[in-house]
Amino acid sequence: MAGGRGERFWPQSRQARPKHLLPIVGDKPMVAQTVARLAGLVQPERVYVLTNVEHLAAIRGACPEIPPAQIIGEPVGRDTAPAAALAALLIRRRDPQGVLALLAADSAIHDAAGFRTTLSAAFTTAAKEDYIFTIGIPPAYPAIAYGYLRRGEKLGECAELPWFKVAKFVEKPDRPTAERYLAEGNYWWNAGMFVTRASVLESAFTKFTPSLAAGMADLDSRLDAGDTLPVALAAVYPGLTKISVDYAVMEKAANIAVFAAAFDWDDVGEWPALVRHATADAVGNVTRGEAVLHEARNNIVIGEPGHLVAVLGVDDLVVVHTPDATLVCPKSRAQELKKLLKDVEARPGGARWL
Amino acid sequence: MAGGRGERFWPQSRQARPKHLLPIVGDKPMVAQTVARLAGLVQPERVYVLTNVEHLAAIRGACPEIPPAQIIGEPVGRDTAPAAALAALLIRRRDPQGVLALLAADSAIHDAAGFRTTLSAAFTTAAKEDYIFTIGIPPAYPAIAYGYLRRGEKLGECAELPWFKVAKFVEKPDRPTAERYLAEGNYWWNAGMFVTRASVLESAFTKFTPSLAAGMADLDSRLDAGDTLPVALAAVYPGLTKISVDYAVMEKAANIAVFAAAFDWDDVGEWPALVRHATADAVGNVTRGEAVLHEARNNIVIGEPGHLVAVLGVDDLVVVHTPDATLVCPKSRAQELKKLLKDVEARPGGARWL
Repeated sequence: MAGGRGERFWPQSRQARPKHLLPIVGDKPMVAQTVARLAGLVQPERVYVLTNVEHLAAIRGACPEIPPAQIIGEPVGRDTAPAAALAALLIRRRDPQGVLALLAADSAIHDAAGFRTTLSAAFTTAAKEDYIFTIGIPPAYPAIAYGYLRRGEKLGECAELPWFKVAKFVEKPDRPTAERYLAEGNYWWNAGMFVTRASVLESAFTKFTPSLAAGMADLDSRLDAGDTLPVALAAVYPGLTKISVDYAVMEKAANIAVFAAAFDWDDVGEWPALVRHATADAVGNVTRGEAVLHEARNNIVIGEPGHLVAVLGVDDLVVVHTPDATLVCPKSRAQELKKLLKDVEARPGGARWL
Repeated sequence: MAGGRGERFWPQSRQARPKHLLPIVGDKPMVAQTVARLAGLVQPERVYVLTNVEHLAAIRGACPEIPPAQIIGEPVGRDTAPAAALAALLIRRRDPQGVLALLAADSAIHDAAGFRTTLSAAFTTAAKEDYIFTIGIPPAYPAIAYGYLRRGEKLGECAELPWFKVAKFVEKPDRPTAERYLAEGNYWWNAGMFVTRASVLESAFTKFTPSLAAGMADLDSRLDAGDTLPVALAAVYPGLTKISVDYAVMEKAANIAVFAAAFDWDDVGEWPALVRHATADAVGNVTRGEAVLHEARNNIVIGEPGHLVAVLGVDDLVVVHTPDATLVCPKSRAQELKKLLKDVEARPGGARWL
């Protein structure tokens, strides 16, 4: 799933160039890293990318090894449930017993081997168990930016990796709650990764979101009747309800299980998250490109080749320069970028910077 | 006097493009505004600009009405005393009774008529009185960035403008002292403008800085012998001692008088000074070019056409974008730019940004 509006890493990310198309963490577009991370486990000809139609060309450029027809543009954004249902439909049509992994295109995962080990165990298990498996990330710190899930009873094990019933999903907690989750040890980050047989996921949609299931049935018929996928999507997708897969299915279905991730994971949801993936200087500054800092601490400063960003006497700021726009904000307010971008959009001609 | 190293308004100002060549305040280079402000009082053919040799071409471009030979490059910077002595020499050679005004090329003065009225009175008085006249600026606020002078007894009047003996010059004060000066009413800002007969100034140099006077006598002889001014300057100027006109003469001579300025004056010594010459928005932000601010107060934000500077949630910052360098610093630390620029210079290849 390569969605996103390009807001959280503005001005590097834009509507036409969201985070998954940028090397925010790592040295190539994050969607390309996501595909590369599957190497040896899932061949490119079995990878599908669901994205916005306006990003089709860019994704095809970033992922040339994926068959172009499997890079699929949603005519309109409808959140993750329709995307998941579409994935289930396409995989089930290809193989009625097919197992799928739903992955975000823009997560940072450094331990690719551990990732494949975990995913492989989940694939093996999902092929025979009627569960939707999530991947839970044992928290590394008391994050307040992620949803959590509480692990229930152990249900099984595969390749020495245990899996558990999910007792419940919980929203992003406040700091004390996050600290309690960390201390209790049975709360894991909900990474939004799911592994399941396509047919199991389709059954869940039929049960909990019948209108979405009906839309998918319509799509299925149109494909049977010979429509191309883009034509069928254009007819059906706009009529679907916008809803997240968590809300539509995961928080409702009883057959949700979780594998503990044997790897690191980071959603990298905003500029300050970079600090977790970069080497800071002695006073906590993370810099890229040309940057000079004087008596300045704990800043994130992104210049570019040939353009110097010079910072004096400030702490805890994000400063990002791009050829046509520069951002300055405190790290603590980076999650409010959307509000700033509304003001940018409201400016005459401001849309050119979005 | 068009000196300056281009540091205080970095990154807009550079070594090759100091403040007086920029429209920091106003809509044309400040040196051109300075010349224009004299219109009707001093014709361009009687204006001399003393500058660094590397800025000759730029000043000639900015001030096409001044005879090119009167735009004079100092081979090396030697502070204001040698420049003042050179000015006195050149004017006295042109007219033994000549009166000169020594003016900075980069001050902001909005009331040009009041400026000319004051200067005219000083010219008239200096033509017959053996004084070096300074122009004192009645303080508008308790500035700590300027030197002051204390007015002594009234010595005369011209065109209804009184002039006084200068009791003493004082260095930049601390805040409580500046407030006392403002309250006492007889302390004026030392604007570094001087009006005097050339011969009177030469006498002062002879008395208080004989080595400088000797250097000027050498220069005088070389010009008499037919050397061009650039050739003579190249021979003599590097041997002169670096010293300010205040320290060399003004603080020592007894014949220093002061006219009160009948006009506004601002040295515009650093980015935060812009606030005094611009209209701020409702929450105190001064912006130029393309800028969007969200929940941000009392900032100075300088973008450019086509490049957006977007600021979220910060107060009291200076953010200046130029095509090849961007500055971020608190207003309160803008006077420390020099320290930052030392770090820039120390960076491999960093000199390109100075």
